[in-house]
Order: sequence, then C-alpha cells, then structure tokens
Amino acid sequence: MGPHPAVAAIRLAVRRVLHDVLTDLTDPADRAAATPPLVLVACSGGADSMALASALAFEAPKLGIRAGGITIDHGLQPGSDLRAAEVVNRMTALRLDPVESVAVRVGRDGGPEAAARDARYAALDEAADRLGAAAVLLGHTRDDQAETVLLGLARGSGIRSLSGMAEVSGGPGRTRRYRRPFLHIDRQTARKACMVQSLPVWDDPHNIDPAYTRSRLRHEGLPALEKALGKGVVEALARTAQLSRDDADALDAWAADAEAGVRDADGRLECAKLYALPPAVRRRVLRRAVVAAGSPAGSLFARHIEEVDRLITGWRGQGAINLPGRVEAQRQGGRLVIRQG
Amino acid sequence: MGPHPAVAAIRLAVRRVLHDVLTDLTDPADRAAATPPLVLVACSGGADSMALASALAFEAPKLGIRAGGITIDHGLQPGSDLRAAEVVNRMTALRLDPVESVAVRVGRDGGPEAAARDARYAALDEAADRLGAAAVLLGHTRDDQAETVLLGLARGSGIRSLSGMAEVSGGPGRTRRYRRPFLHIDRQTARKACMVQSLPVWDDPHNIDPAYTRSRLRHEGLPALEKALGKGVVEALARTAQLSRDDADALDAWAADAEAGVRDADGRLECAKLYALPPAVRRRVLRRAVVAAGSPAGSLFARHIEEVDRLITGWRGQGAINLPGRVEAQRQGGRLVIRQG
Repeated sequence: MGPHPAVAAIRLAVRRVLHDVLTDLTDPADRAAATPPLVLVACSGGADSMALASALAFEAPKLGIRAGGITIDHGLQPGSDLRAAEVVNRMTALRLDPVESVAVRVGRDGGPEAAARDARYAALDEAADRLGAAAVLLGHTRDDQAETVLLGLARGSGIRSLSGMAEVSGGPGRTRRYRRPFLHIDRQTARKACMVQSLPVWDDPHNIDPAYTRSRLRHEGLPALEKALGKGVVEALARTAQLSRDDADALDAWAADAEAGVRDADGRLECAKLYALPPAVRRRVLRRAVVAAGSPAGSLFARHIEEVDRLITGWRGQGAINLPGRVEAQRQGGRLVIRQG
Repeated sequence: MGPHPAVAAIRLAVRRVLHDVLTDLTDPADRAAATPPLVLVACSGGADSMALASALAFEAPKLGIRAGGITIDHGLQPGSDLRAAEVVNRMTALRLDPVESVAVRVGRDGGPEAAARDARYAALDEAADRLGAAAVLLGHTRDDQAETVLLGLARGSGIRSLSGMAEVSGGPGRTRRYRRPFLHIDRQTARKACMVQSLPVWDDPHNIDPAYTRSRLRHEGLPALEKALGKGVVEALARTAQLSRDDADALDAWAADAEAGVRDADGRLECAKLYALPPAVRRRVLRRAVVAAGSPAGSLFARHIEEVDRLITGWRGQGAINLPGRVEAQRQGGRLVIRQG
C-alpha cells in the first residue's frame, strides 16, 4: 500500500523541485560549493511548512541531498523563543540536519506584515549563505497564492502585481535560491498530509488576527468570493498569477527592447517615437525611464505614469510633472526630459 | 449656482463621449448617413441608465445631436411590457425622440444572463441600424466594471478576461457603435444624480436575485472584499481592467506579428522557432493557430493551450491532443500539425 494521496502529492511536488535544484547545480561553481548539496526548509511549525519539511526529509536522501531546516523567531509574542525551540525539536524529529532557530528583530518599515517578511528573508539569506545551501524551500500553497493575487488586485497597479509569488525567486547574489514546491497544492492537502503522518502543527496567531489584511482576506474576503463565484476561485486566481507573470515578463522584455529605439542620438526620449508604441509598451518604457532617473519603484504608481503618458498622448502645453524621489518629467521641443531635481 | 456635483459629473462624462462620436463622424460616409446625427441611450429604467438618459437629453442638443432612447422588454417577468411602456414615458418626459420599447425573446444559450444579454444587443443593433443611430450609450458604471473583472478573474483564463468592458465597442459592421460614458462614474453618483433631478427609477429584480452570479457578487462578494481590502477595491479593479486591456492588446499584436515568423515555407509551425518565443507570446500564437483550425474560441481554455504548449516545451513523445471542435494538435518531425479531424 502506498502513502496516503495527500502525502504522495506533497512528496511528488518536493521531488520535482529537488530535481530542478540538482539540474541547476550542473553549474560547476555551484557544484563545487556544496557536495553533497544542502537544501533547507523554512518552517514556522504550521501545517504547510511542516508538511514541506516532512516531504523534504523523505525525498532528499533518495537524491543524495542533505536536508536541513530553519525556523525564524520573530519575537512578536511572549514565548516565541520557546515556540521556535519546539519547532527545532520537531524538525530534528524528522531527521533534518542541520536545524536552526534564528531570532530576528522586526522593524516597522512598510507595515507589520512587510517588516516581518523583510526580517525573515534577511535571516534566511544569512543562514543559507552561512550553511552553503543550494536552495531554501518555502511552504506557500495555492491558497496563499490566491490571496497574494487578490492583494495585488487591490493595488490596481497592473498585471505585474497580479502575478503573485514565483515558483523560483532570488536572494542577494543568488537568483534561484527560493523555491515554492506547494504553489499548486492546496492548504487542505498540506493539513491532511500532516494529520495522516501524525505531525504536530500549530497555527501562527497572525493567521487569524483580523488586524492583518491577509487574515481578513483568508477568513472573510475569499470565502465570500467563493460563495458568489464558486469553488474554483482559488484555482482560477492561482492560474491568473502564472499567466500574468508570463505576460508581464514578455511586456517588460518588449519595453527593454523598445527603449533604445525611442531615444535620439543624445539619448533623449523622442515623443513621436514613444507615441507610435502600443500604450502598454509605452507606459513600461516611461516607467523604466522614471525609475532610472531616481524615482523609487515602490512609490511609483500607475497614476504617476498615466500623467507622464499624457505628455505624449494628450499634449496641451502642460508643465513639469513632479514624481516620487524629486524626479521631474517635462516635454521640451518634442523630447521628454526626465531628471532628478 | 451650477448643477449638483453628481449631475455635473454625469453630464461631463456624456459630453466627452458625444465629442468623440462627432469626431468619428468626420468619416464622410458616416456623416452623410445621419444629419443631424442621432445618439441613442439604452435605458432599463434603473438609476444608471436613467441618469445617462437625463445627461444625454441635456448635452445632445447643445452639440447639434438628436437624442433618442430604447428600452428592451425581456419578457422575463409578468407585466414587463407595462414596465417597458413606463420607461418609454419617462424617456419621453426627458424629451428624448425617438423613443421605443423593443420586445425580445430570451433563449437559453449560455445561461440566463448570457441569453438575456445576447437578445438585448441583437435588439439594440437592429434598432440602431433601423434608426440610423451614430452611437448607442450604455449605462455601465465603475461598479459594473469591477464586477466584470471579478467574473473574469473567476474564469482564470488570463488577462484578456480581466479587461472588463471597453469604453467603445462594436456591433455587426459597426466597430464603434457602443459607448460606455459611465465606466469611471460610480453607481452612487448615478443614483444621486437621479435623486437630485427627481427622476423616478426602478430596480431590475435580477439585480437583487441571488440566483444570478453577478447579483451575488454585488451584494455579498464585493462588499466582503471591500471589508477585507479597503474601500479602494472597486477603483483598483476598474484600473486593472484598463491596464489589462492595453496589455492584452499589445501581446495579441505581438503574437499576430510573430506567427508569420514561426512557419516554414509550407506554412507549418516550426517547434524550434516556437520554443524561442516568450511563453506569453507562444501561447497566444498557439491559440490563434488552434482557433484558425476550427476550434471555437469560447470553448478553448487555458488548460487546452497549456497542453499544446507542452508539445513544444515538454516534448517526450506524447500523442495527438484533442481540442474542442474536433481539432487535433500533434508534433511531427519538429513541426506542429494542428487540424480538424
């Protein structure tokens, strides 16, 4: 008798990702750095990442990979250090090695969720570098992906923000460090896999705290949307993420190509050539130019770019446009001049 | 003292669209067809379209445009004919002329909402042709647009389905017949404009019938999403529609360009050349080829195209793939053969 279907599903997902990690290691520099290679799991002790840890512990040895685990103590609740120590014990019980708890200080930049995330990834990057890990696995599920798409939708800033989390993403100096094997696995499957393997799990109190946007979305927004639109919403949102990501990549590549062609001999943007581009490409070229002039990408919204675009498409002698980061855009003699003041 | 801000807002929105209609009429063939030009409003008697009718009645004469109105009697409730006659009276009271009620038979194809919509547009097209109208105004608001984006999201079929309703769209033989002046106006403003102008309105019973997906979305899904994500959700969804539409247009244009370049001398698709395209463009080229081979666009889902795509990106000798409309796709000697069986 084989394993329970939920356990089979999570193991298959992890096996595929480990194969990809090994394929990437055919780069000789990487291979020399770690033999046998080490793959870490980032584990909060919740069902998703405990399921991931169990599947990694099962699959890695079969592929000649060492499996380790990191848990982050965010220090946001009293006793979080004891919790982290307990997660370390649980990972050790799964025979992961090395296993570490890393305490971080969560700042305030960008709100509580963003600050916790920044601190977490900085600690994971540090641990991965120090331990020479080939990859770090993250337990985000299809449900997390659906929530991320809706959070992006609420920003209204275009398809890049609809593209959710990538299956593979980078850390500093490492373009393919993070892997998300469970983006096609639903939360229920991860939970079930823990149950049938008798793995103890605990729920992050933030996940049910209505002060957190994601928690409100999970417990109220998404269920109401499913009630209105049907049970396939989570899958549809996850598929939208993948399609949007590919579309955004293709359009970004087009804009990068187009940018050289719309500059004059002195490198200034020519309005007539910008006008001839499709709006979707033109707006991306403008965005690139504004960011290159020193505007912080995170503060630059769709409405800013729309205003710059009107210098091209709705020219009626308007003055300079002020953009985040003290950047100014103005039209002068058929050229668009974008510079920091 | 000027008009109430809500009335000013709806009139400005209509004035802009009427200017666009006049600009389009510089095409001599159109101008000869109707002098002075006639613009119709499609009016259900609800707040959105009554507000639209009132603004059209006010703005059209100032621009030398005749303003008329059509109401559709869907025949779905007892007494719908009396309702339609009452809407005709209300439009006449606004001094619209001509004013008509058109009775339609709603079929069953595609579900009740789609069948009603098909019957409605067929009747509007017929009336516009018969009366020689230059344009037909539709009262869809920003809230309707947000709902349409969420309905598209639930299909999970990519950014084209996120692009909502167009500000300008076509009927048979008329590429710019329909105009939606209120896509940037919220439902509350339209309602307010009716109230301050003492216009009687009535609510379509379908709008509050939970059997209809859109109604469930309006009264449960979207409010829950706003509660989780904040009040800006409707605006963000409407902005997403516009950005997605432009992105989808640009990528469709790219795919149309790319298609010629990936065919061999005999017009067959070359797998190696397809492989070199960005995934977003390749999937669109494949979709075009499958539709051209006879697959009905409406039955062709993202998962079908993904399966065809794996003949290119994940080739391991798989057999022919069956697609809607008895179309088959198979890989033969480095070529992709797509044909109807």
